[in-house]
Amino acid sequence: MSAGEGAPAFVVRPLRREDRPGWQPLWDGYNAFYGRAGETALPDAITESTWERFFDAAEPVHALVAEEGGRIVGLAHYLFHRSTTRLADVCYLQDLFTIPEMRGRGVGRRLIEAVGEAARERGCGRLYWQTQAGNEASRALYDRVARHHGFIVYSQEL
Amino acid sequence: MSAGEGAPAFVVRPLRREDRPGWQPLWDGYNAFYGRAGETALPDAITESTWERFFDAAEPVHALVAEEGGRIVGLAHYLFHRSTTRLADVCYLQDLFTIPEMRGRGVGRRLIEAVGEAARERGCGRLYWQTQAGNEASRALYDRVARHHGFIVYSQEL
Amino acid sequence: MSAGEGAPAFVVRPLRREDRPGWQPLWDGYNAFYGRAGETALPDAITESTWERFFDAAEPVHALVAEEGGRIVGLAHYLFHRSTTRLADVCYLQDLFTIPEMRGRGVGRRLIEAVGEAARERGCGRLYWQTQAGNEASRALYDRVARHHGFIVYSQEL
Amino acid sequence: MSAGEGAPAFVVRPLRREDRPGWQPLWDGYNAFYGRAGETALPDAITESTWERFFDAAEPVHALVAEEGGRIVGLAHYLFHRSTTRLADVCYLQDLFTIPEMRGRGVGRRLIEAVGEAARERGCGRLYWQTQAGNEASRALYDRVARHHGFIVYSQEL
Repeated sequence: MSAGEGAPAFVVRPLRREDRPGWQPLWDGYNAFYGRAGETALPDAITESTWERFFDAAEPVHALVAEEGGRIVGLAHYLFHRSTTRLADVCYLQDLFTIPEMRGRGVGRRLIEAVGEAARERGCGRLYWQTQAGNEASRALYDRVARHHGFIVYSQEL
Repeated sequence: MSAGEGAPAFVVRPLRREDRPGWQPLWDGYNAFYGRAGETALPDAITESTWERFFDAAEPVHALVAEEGGRIVGLAHYLFHRSTTRLADVCYLQDLFTIPEMRGRGVGRRLIEAVGEAARERGCGRLYWQTQAGNEASRALYDRVARHHGFIVYSQEL
Repeated sequence: MSAGEGAPAFVVRPLRREDRPGWQPLWDGYNAFYGRAGETALPDAITESTWERFFDAAEPVHALVAEEGGRIVGLAHYLFHRSTTRLADVCYLQDLFTIPEMRGRGVGRRLIEAVGEAARERGCGRLYWQTQAGNEASRALYDRVARHHGFIVYSQEL
Repeated sequence: MSAGEGAPAFVVRPLRREDRPGWQPLWDGYNAFYGRAGETALPDAITESTWERFFDAAEPVHALVAEEGGRIVGLAHYLFHRSTTRLADVCYLQDLFTIPEMRGRGVGRRLIEAVGEAARERGCGRLYWQTQAGNEASRALYDRVARHHGFIVYSQEL
């Protein structure tokens, strides 16, 4: 029997304050994967600030988690921002992570769908995210659910 | 004598309401270049809304123009938005355009620098933009002033 | 039989774009009552902008209406804003209006309650509004549903 | 010689992070004066959050201080928010405080003026604040610099 068969055992739902212990290791793992802030971990002050923004209704920063049997097994952090070519905000899915042992079970796909639903509900017409060109595992999924129009990202630290 | 010699004749400054007649053709040209909204032009309602946002202090959407001898010869539209891995907002340079006859004179470079200065002044630590991978003319400049970390953009219309 | 008996025939619900024809006369009537902008009516550009903000998910400006038999009979416009003494935003009920022939039927009270529910749902802990000290008709209701702590409003046109 | 004569020895300027030790006692004194949060002090978490918002360019919350000889002698906290009857935001001067020994020297007046200048610069056309009707000392100043149109404030805790 393949991992994908049957109804998924996990549920996708908004992050809650009491998820902190379960969410933290995924967030740390995600940041370790991308090696943010050079070799060092993301400063705690940023994690605290982002965490508070998830629960501040005045902030456009949101989080969903995938939970299985009381355990957080995936996360999606997204935010809304203006665009010069849209009336409504666009939705940026900034962070997407599934714990290794749950990969291939549709967690990432379901998280993307749920972000899309939340964005659509808010009147938003575009969902986007970034990935490293060489991240073939992720791109196998992304190529099925979204389109890549050949845009690459340049950045400057100021 | 190369076009780049001597002091640039153009100045870079914030967009003003009275620039509308000079700004409009550049905006139209830029959108035609990217073929936004399929084969059709950007709806007027979006241009009106974006224009008003440039002058609404509560909106994080801003515009700079390059002017030479009273003529608008370049534009840069940028906006600030949250990030889950930063305390301060990041700056997205969404639109950058120089009229064809002014290319190679440093207009784009100077516009990027001015956006970076505005962002830094606001406490922002990251400026980024997107470009099509095959846009070699632009990338020749971008590779000198910024870094490309291999990220590509996926998107969904909702 | 008193006006308050039986189930109210009106419903309170979020404003919709198709309510524009029914909403406009109430808005005009409300502004005439307060004599805003001196003797002149509120400029159309402001009404258009406020109307669009009601439907822009990035804006903290919202509208509810009371409808009876397909007719708009009351409106409540509210917005959220920061406070230096709160974590969450506070809610300002800026505009509240019931058409004269529906007064005394509980429309204003129900609109205030519905704004309070929307605010509470957003995590907001304080709802406030202003009224003229001499507006006895309105204050009879306000004194039943809220408290007046003796604060008065000073303002400057800049 | 009256206290008001000669050039004021104090300066009014934006709050800086290093002002924290000097700002804190004024903030505590101000909150004690208004007896916020019942008999208890304002929770530290709120002070921390408001403090951080002063330095977050994405937040519409700002602070000015009056300084004399290196000592913070007055504070003004203000914020911008939407209005249904304006295109531009309005400015709410939420907190204004001068240490007792500096009263009558024009600190409050100068702080109000400076907030007005900051608001005007941002395109804002209205500055307002609230005061208790019985606060005669403050109203003596307010009646000289602003107008009271008879509006009083009702509020509900949700």
